[in-house]
Amino acid sequence: MSSTDLLLAPDALPAGFRFACVTAGLKASGKPDFALAIADAPASAAALYTANRVQAAPLIVDRKHIARSGGKIRVVAVNSGNANCATGEAGIQAAEQVCAAASEAFACHDYEVFPSSTGIIGVPLPAEKLVAAMPAASAQAAGTAEAFSAFARGILTTDTRPKVASARAEIDGQTVRIVGTCKGAGMIGPQLVPHATMLGYIFTDAAIEPAVLDSYLRASVDTSFNCISIDGDMSTNDTVLILASGTSGVALPAGHPAFRIALDAVCLSLARQIVHDGEGVTHVVELQIKGAPSDADARTIAKTIAHSPLVKTAWAGMDPNWGRLMAAIGYSGVAIEPERINIWFGRHEICRNGGRSPLYDEAQAHAYLQQREFTVRIDLGLGSGTCNFFTTDLTHEYVHINADYST
Amino acid sequence: MSSTDLLLAPDALPAGFRFACVTAGLKASGKPDFALAIADAPASAAALYTANRVQAAPLIVDRKHIARSGGKIRVVAVNSGNANCATGEAGIQAAEQVCAAASEAFACHDYEVFPSSTGIIGVPLPAEKLVAAMPAASAQAAGTAEAFSAFARGILTTDTRPKVASARAEIDGQTVRIVGTCKGAGMIGPQLVPHATMLGYIFTDAAIEPAVLDSYLRASVDTSFNCISIDGDMSTNDTVLILASGTSGVALPAGHPAFRIALDAVCLSLARQIVHDGEGVTHVVELQIKGAPSDADARTIAKTIAHSPLVKTAWAGMDPNWGRLMAAIGYSGVAIEPERINIWFGRHEICRNGGRSPLYDEAQAHAYLQQREFTVRIDLGLGSGTCNFFTTDLTHEYVHINADYST
Repeated sequence: MSSTDLLLAPDALPAGFRFACVTAGLKASGKPDFALAIADAPASAAALYTANRVQAAPLIVDRKHIARSGGKIRVVAVNSGNANCATGEAGIQAAEQVCAAASEAFACHDYEVFPSSTGIIGVPLPAEKLVAAMPAASAQAAGTAEAFSAFARGILTTDTRPKVASARAEIDGQTVRIVGTCKGAGMIGPQLVPHATMLGYIFTDAAIEPAVLDSYLRASVDTSFNCISIDGDMSTNDTVLILASGTSGVALPAGHPAFRIALDAVCLSLARQIVHDGEGVTHVVELQIKGAPSDADARTIAKTIAHSPLVKTAWAGMDPNWGRLMAAIGYSGVAIEPERINIWFGRHEICRNGGRSPLYDEAQAHAYLQQREFTVRIDLGLGSGTCNFFTTDLTHEYVHINADYST
Repeated sequence: MSSTDLLLAPDALPAGFRFACVTAGLKASGKPDFALAIADAPASAAALYTANRVQAAPLIVDRKHIARSGGKIRVVAVNSGNANCATGEAGIQAAEQVCAAASEAFACHDYEVFPSSTGIIGVPLPAEKLVAAMPAASAQAAGTAEAFSAFARGILTTDTRPKVASARAEIDGQTVRIVGTCKGAGMIGPQLVPHATMLGYIFTDAAIEPAVLDSYLRASVDTSFNCISIDGDMSTNDTVLILASGTSGVALPAGHPAFRIALDAVCLSLARQIVHDGEGVTHVVELQIKGAPSDADARTIAKTIAHSPLVKTAWAGMDPNWGRLMAAIGYSGVAIEPERINIWFGRHEICRNGGRSPLYDEAQAHAYLQQREFTVRIDLGLGSGTCNFFTTDLTHEYVHINADYST
């Protein structure tokens, strides 16, 4: 795929937005590192941020701007190559400088600009490079699938490919479009709060009040971005933002099923694309937990399994060593009863009543785990709590990517 | 070192115990896999077990036997090569069979036998092999440094070397001896409860009542075995047992400083030996956390750092990327204030007030991290809570050891 290939069909793009991407010079590689999305008019905005207590400077600025503007955003300005985190007051000022330059270039208030950063933590952000790149970005901005594709590429760091999803909702005979893009391959253990260096940007042409948009976003994020993990390291910069331009003319109240389903689909697709592009991933695993005391307990068990180095290395080795799963379930903190636990790899029963299943066939289990994607189903036999969670194996390549002395 | 080398000085061994180690045939390698310790007379016993809710069969039997015997144990019977966990009622029966055979061989009650197992989870334990090996073990048992050394080797699994520590306490002009051995290199994230497949066995010739022995053991384990982590995977089989034969004639009340210090030294030495022998370890890291709201908070932060794949791979790469430390501190759940955090690598100040220190010298920091052992000091600037914690890096070799399809 060439770097100019379209990542979505031209008619999938919601109207009311323009996109741009330039090279400001933050990345040693010389790749594009400054991506902008511009709403033609102030767009309703809702955003969720990482639950990490160490928060990058742009997140602090974003909260202030969204409060000040009453949930209306004109410009999203995303740099890759530097996280602008653990940079103190100077980091806040750097983010504000970028906003000031964007407000001038796009004729809006500085508090209508939403900055984002991703990259290395603890290194001062050279805001002057982003400021200097602003005129070129402004000249280039366009409401086309090409420009959106460039935006999707400009936000990447260790990702091997861009991530894009789109959906339509038919509402009272009219069409509402949703398109989203995100980045992330490592430091992925998001908990967006009400939680994610995962960055996600979603655009729709529906007309939705900011508070209503927020409730849609929270619901969709909870079963998508909040149900994935690569290394379990929760980032300081995770952000998911949705902007609604209203250009479709379709005004949406809270809880409209068609819109909710479409937004769920976009968020889930983007979240899964992150897992598939996880650092060093050779296996993508869907954990289907059921029979837990509560949904929260099911998620706790899924996360514990997804963060176990022994489970993840067994997956890398296609090793059906299910005892490691039992151990992780046992230390999850959930009040499980071992003798009620049943485990399947796909359709293959592995564990019955907490012990090796009489149907267990090691060769068959090993063969099943050789697929790039597989499913581990666990029934705890206790209640009605469930969770579907996507995670990865832990491979030599993950260690290689992250142990390389590259600062 | 040959397999018959002494692991401790002959006069370090407390009197009142004999040791044996034979090959029962559980390990494919044909290495010794069945180790026994025999007290000449019922010895005071105290034991701590894993906090994992999935508990191996021997732990269930151990609790029952210690309760039944009033904290008096005659025989410790440890097999390596099979964890006897997730083996259901048959697993309990297998452990009981081993106890019955030991009670016959050593002329004691079956409830005076303390079985332990370590190895693969979910595979039935062939008790008949251990029963068949009992006469040879009985014939061989001896109160010598050679026999103790064989015991220390017989309990190993993926360990690359045996682990032994000893200490003496002078009490009212008399000498009390303590000697301990342990195993563990992977699935190490112990939390021994009042918490650990770490197995530890400590022997002393002091005369101590079981309840008093228990209080000594809990205090020493809390700052040793409970303050280490390799992969953070808490095992289903972790056990630490101390036996006091009383043969020194020195009767000890609770809280005797000299005994406490000696036991602390043995436990800390054994715990650190486990970390040094961690699977694939190339760096051993001492985390010194201070200024936390509480000791418990300091430990939570230490554990979060010790379980972060991004921090551990950075250590493997000798990468001074301290932003990963900040991210882990931030998602630990402790109510930290980022701008109060200071970090040093040894004597090198890395982070001041939550940002890069003006003294930060990347080349110097990188050079410091090239040592096999180094210290990361973190001052949270909030309270008086502290924790010293030992952990490891995460390397290619760890992945190799655990991703090999070897079931």
